[in-house]
Amino acid sequence: MVDILHRVGVKDATPENVYEALTTVDGLAGWWTTDTSEHDGVLRFRFPPIGGFDMEVLETRPAERVTWKVVDGPEEWIGTTVDWQLRREGEYTVILFGHRGWKEPVEFMNHCSTKWATFLLSLKSLVENGKGSPAPDDVRVGDWH
Amino acid sequence: MVDILHRVGVKDATPENVYEALTTVDGLAGWWTTDTSEHDGVLRFRFPPIGGFDMEVLETRPAERVTWKVVDGPEEWIGTTVDWQLRREGEYTVILFGHRGWKEPVEFMNHCSTKWATFLLSLKSLVENGKGSPAPDDVRVGDWH
Repeated sequence: MVDILHRVGVKDATPENVYEALTTVDGLAGWWTTDTSEHDGVLRFRFPPIGGFDMEVLETRPAERVTWKVVDGPEEWIGTTVDWQLRREGEYTVILFGHRGWKEPVEFMNHCSTKWATFLLSLKSLVENGKGSPAPDDVRVGDWH
Repeated sequence: MVDILHRVGVKDATPENVYEALTTVDGLAGWWTTDTSEHDGVLRFRFPPIGGFDMEVLETRPAERVTWKVVDGPEEWIGTTVDWQLRREGEYTVILFGHRGWKEPVEFMNHCSTKWATFLLSLKSLVENGKGSPAPDDVRVGDWH
């Protein structure tokens, strides 16, 4: 099992601010994909025309931690978990991110690692300045988008 | 042992173009840090006032692969390797990146993973448009810079 790990610090923000961007449809649509919805505790993120991800919300500890389990999407993603740990460090809220449980370090994992970094910076920008870069206006990192 | 993995595609570029940005002092100074030098097969990357990294060049296979070994820098980095695999995919040159052999997935590894993504996008921009964002003008991702 291999993991994608990232860390960003959101300036002049509280863990509550970041938590809101991770647990509301409006918040999520502001940094990951505008095509976000929720049905019965499952978050649906779509990236037309490519496809998307369904995340079961496993854990929400206000202003501290969010954990999702991937229940639908690309084969390599299914069964993996995505977790977000939040804590205050001075004027920053630090986000520790993990996308864990990849069976193999396939090339698609390399791509997803780089894309996650751009989406974390989109989340940081959303909370800091009110404007993220969600799909379809996300940062293109290469031939796989 | 745990690894940081990334993948970017550089548009309208040949593997030779990317290889040059990875194997010349001018190229490296254009996307990672302006304070780059080489002495006896060791690349010295400095990020004043924080410190830096010394990389022994283990392998250079023109337009295909570059491998470095970290011989000086932060304790967690020493002994790890950084490798770059290049290949053509249509109008893109794909870069597969690995920073391998971390002993533990410490929080500093999360930070370095996100920073590497920003430097890979800096490298992509340098080769595509002639302008990267090397330190000291690199993308700030949080309280750890």
